Amino acid sequence: MAPELVDKHQQTLDKAVQALHERTFFAWFPENPSPEIYGENADKEGRGKYTSYLNHKFEELQQQDPEQWVGQEESPYEQQPLGIQYPYFPVNTLIARSEEAFQEWRKVKPADRAALLVESLERVRSRFFEIAYATMHTTGQAFMMSFQASGPHAADRALEAVAAGYEELTRFPGSAEWEKQMGKYSVRLHKSWMAVPKGISLVIGCSTFPTWNTVPGMYASLVTGNPVIVKPHPKAVLPIAIVIAEVQKVLAENGYNPAVCQLAVDADDHLITKELAEHRKVKLIDYTGSTEFGNYIERLPGKIVFTEKTGVNSVILDSVEDLDKVVQNLAFSVSLYSGQMCTAPQNFFIPAPGVKAGEELVPYEVVVQKLADAVSSLVNNPKAAPHVLGAIQNPATVERVKAGVSGRTILSSCDFTNPLFANARTCSPVIYEVDAADKAAYSKELFGPIILVIKTKDTAQSVELAAEMAVTYGAISCAAYTTDPAVKERIKDEMGMTGTPVSFNLTGGIYVNQNASFSDYHVTGGNPAGNASFTNPEFVVKRFTWVGFREPAG
Amino acid sequence: MAPELVDKHQQTLDKAVQALHERTFFAWFPENPSPEIYGENADKEGRGKYTSYLNHKFEELQQQDPEQWVGQEESPYEQQPLGIQYPYFPVNTLIARSEEAFQEWRKVKPADRAALLVESLERVRSRFFEIAYATMHTTGQAFMMSFQASGPHAADRALEAVAAGYEELTRFPGSAEWEKQMGKYSVRLHKSWMAVPKGISLVIGCSTFPTWNTVPGMYASLVTGNPVIVKPHPKAVLPIAIVIAEVQKVLAENGYNPAVCQLAVDADDHLITKELAEHRKVKLIDYTGSTEFGNYIERLPGKIVFTEKTGVNSVILDSVEDLDKVVQNLAFSVSLYSGQMCTAPQNFFIPAPGVKAGEELVPYEVVVQKLADAVSSLVNNPKAAPHVLGAIQNPATVERVKAGVSGRTILSSCDFTNPLFANARTCSPVIYEVDAADKAAYSKELFGPIILVIKTKDTAQSVELAAEMAVTYGAISCAAYTTDPAVKERIKDEMGMTGTPVSFNLTGGIYVNQNASFSDYHVTGGNPAGNASFTNPEFVVKRFTWVGFREPAG
Repeated sequence: MAPELVDKHQQTLDKAVQALHERTFFAWFPENPSPEIYGENADKEGRGKYTSYLNHKFEELQQQDPEQWVGQEESPYEQQPLGIQYPYFPVNTLIARSEEAFQEWRKVKPADRAALLVESLERVRSRFFEIAYATMHTTGQAFMMSFQASGPHAADRALEAVAAGYEELTRFPGSAEWEKQMGKYSVRLHKSWMAVPKGISLVIGCSTFPTWNTVPGMYASLVTGNPVIVKPHPKAVLPIAIVIAEVQKVLAENGYNPAVCQLAVDADDHLITKELAEHRKVKLIDYTGSTEFGNYIERLPGKIVFTEKTGVNSVILDSVEDLDKVVQNLAFSVSLYSGQMCTAPQNFFIPAPGVKAGEELVPYEVVVQKLADAVSSLVNNPKAAPHVLGAIQNPATVERVKAGVSGRTILSSCDFTNPLFANARTCSPVIYEVDAADKAAYSKELFGPIILVIKTKDTAQSVELAAEMAVTYGAISCAAYTTDPAVKERIKDEMGMTGTPVSFNLTGGIYVNQNASFSDYHVTGGNPAGNASFTNPEFVVKRFTWVGFREPAG
Repeated sequence: MAPELVDKHQQTLDKAVQALHERTFFAWFPENPSPEIYGENADKEGRGKYTSYLNHKFEELQQQDPEQWVGQEESPYEQQPLGIQYPYFPVNTLIARSEEAFQEWRKVKPADRAALLVESLERVRSRFFEIAYATMHTTGQAFMMSFQASGPHAADRALEAVAAGYEELTRFPGSAEWEKQMGKYSVRLHKSWMAVPKGISLVIGCSTFPTWNTVPGMYASLVTGNPVIVKPHPKAVLPIAIVIAEVQKVLAENGYNPAVCQLAVDADDHLITKELAEHRKVKLIDYTGSTEFGNYIERLPGKIVFTEKTGVNSVILDSVEDLDKVVQNLAFSVSLYSGQMCTAPQNFFIPAPGVKAGEELVPYEVVVQKLADAVSSLVNNPKAAPHVLGAIQNPATVERVKAGVSGRTILSSCDFTNPLFANARTCSPVIYEVDAADKAAYSKELFGPIILVIKTKDTAQSVELAAEMAVTYGAISCAAYTTDPAVKERIKDEMGMTGTPVSFNLTGGIYVNQNASFSDYHVTGGNPAGNASFTNPEFVVKRFTWVGFREPAG
């Protein structure tokens, strides 16, 4: 490959490695989709590119001789098929091509692999707008989230994984001279070490965040020398297909086999995920999705797996400075992408005696009503609501919301019409109160905009229940509100022990749902919501093996 | 705890962390048991201490109210019970005490934990001689190996694990200020992170290296904040019991609960390992031992496990400079501790056309005979043999050696008498030739001094078979001899891909069996011989979870 590419991206890589260790704000890809940054016509062109894919074969991949062309995507905004077809390959073809590419890719130096991957991200940058429209019309995210989550934020997460992998591969010397004095003579050995990649890596995507949740595992495996097969959710292929196309182009341009990174789509009549996952040549699996399938993945023998499943996220309300600001912040968090984020709060633990707000004790019922009012106010704001709520990816989510929850109804109307998309599949947050004693009612993720209010004896019980839910059923986020330093320490300690990150006292323009690259570890790996984390060292070191060689020195 | 302790050991810790990254020779604990280093009377006193334990209760542990006193050790040199009794506790008692200790230990700062652990190793240093005699009379190792492996080498491996854990815990900032510009205003968050330990750690020891194989997992778990329960092999308790006693003393002296590190012995009438391993409160398991039990451990749901099982280690003979030096080196390797090291070679792949030695091609039969002669010569050297061969830990090993192997017999006499211990259980290496086509004959570990010679078509086949054995059945070492750079690269590549470390062209006083702390990764984790490695980052990072907290700044 061209040495210029390494020079070109070394600075980016060095900055990214540094950012991993500073954990302050760092973003390589601008999240603002403004014309000043991305170009005057970027939005229009991106939309045009997206439209051009509809009802066509996606022919950008460097994967020859497909067995069929298939596609099952449909827009949650239009409730119409996208009509895009992708090349389908039998599992054995994908594996054979991956194996062949592996023999070459594993020998590429870490710095070269990293440079190729950073280059691919720079190329993807020029396609953020079409990826945004692709994401919008597969996941139902509103445009701004589609742009940010699938574009710059995903690219930053990918860069983070590249940086973490590159750092681990270069942290120890490639060789060393070892000399041991043994009385009158000494033994001298020349030693060297090789980071041997584990082998074929399968990355299984989800329907709601088709690039953001896929690229960390994909880039982590690639930088550590493993060939990758990406199997997206059949309803959300296009965003990641564009990313893979760019990776393949960079590989091919630099003389590498593009099969280092392949797209694997399900056939129209059967899913291929299990066949891929169980294949003896597949050594690494990254998975985002349901707990049930995730547990199956985790139990597969002989695989190294990285999962993000589901959790029950808690809000603990103890005491606040300004209750209105708090409920506004929380109303936004539960409404954002209609509660379809893995970080969205679900279980609101509120003490029966009420919540202290400044000097006042606000009664429980007033707190609950304020929360409901804040949600209604957001949903009924036509300027904001469509851009916050987006649409519902899966019809089953709408059914779940409409079916309701047995418990006292606080807010049951989930009707919401998107003024821009008359056919959009939508629903806004509903709120139910369930009994603290009825743990079954709030111990599973109710995916979508469903909020459960749980009246507790006191904050101690709130924390105890939130921690029990997290340790037993998993949790990806916790929002806690307290002005009492002792309560804060207690929550940190108890929720921390359950492997749940906690955001304290968020108000204004920052939300518990958001996890920033290079700073927030996303999913900790420390509870049943998942066994891995974007991006801690474990996320990359498990993808290769240190093997040593030694021989008498010169 | 006393801040002086942190100051006292910070330099040691810093040097050890540096050594991890240099991977040149580094030993903190001198391996030479000389009076100049360890004191004029150290040997005599150590032997006296060992003798004083015999037929007594071992009362040094700070573990109160045992249910019984039990002990099953016997000396392979005397074939007599040691009569030492250890306190036995039911599993629930061990777990309850561990849980209680955990609540305190997890909150101790990494630097303090590391200092306490280094202090414990310094204390253990003063007990290397008694540990040596304890090791000799439980494992059957000769004195020098008992001293080095269970004393300084084990302590160095423990220090290595402490350094690796300490480094990972302090690699990222404990807190950071995060500020994101959002148009006209900015969001500022104060963030902090906690390395949350996984929980109760069980370390299961083996009968042949009761401290060397136990302390890495034990110290890795301890430094990362996990309480440890050490369950040694019932036939090799004393060496690690002494280490645990020292850890407990350091803990108690500094005001910590000594149950942070407990000894768990099997009852005389039943083994408790499975009950411990399956206990839901046990989160981490380190295991050294048979493949069968190791596979059971690896399959336990919901545990993070680190295993060293067994493998079939290969010797690949292609071309040499001096064949006599090579066979002498290999004869020593197979004789050292009578082939009871996990790194001992077993399968010798020798090409039918012979082995090139300098300019000469030495016929296959001559190579085989030279190997047998070198073994016989070593075994028949009364000054060397007892100190190399030691005794046989397990009667089943003697039976296996005496039973022989179906194949052509090269060397079958395994009678060997130790002049110092008339009752020692001994046997010297036997050699059989098995057919290359009969893979079943050489695809399992024949634990003990059994060597299989496999005649291959050529070196390419030798490498292919050695790699196949490693990838399918596991391998912990490979000794390869070649003067051809291309063959060397091929072996590195093919064996490297199987996760097998390779020692090339060793002659003289360095052997394939030996793995040095701070330089050689022991077991790679990359093949079925084990899923972990002493000590790579993976060995420590899996023992805790990074959890983040954030709140609006100031």
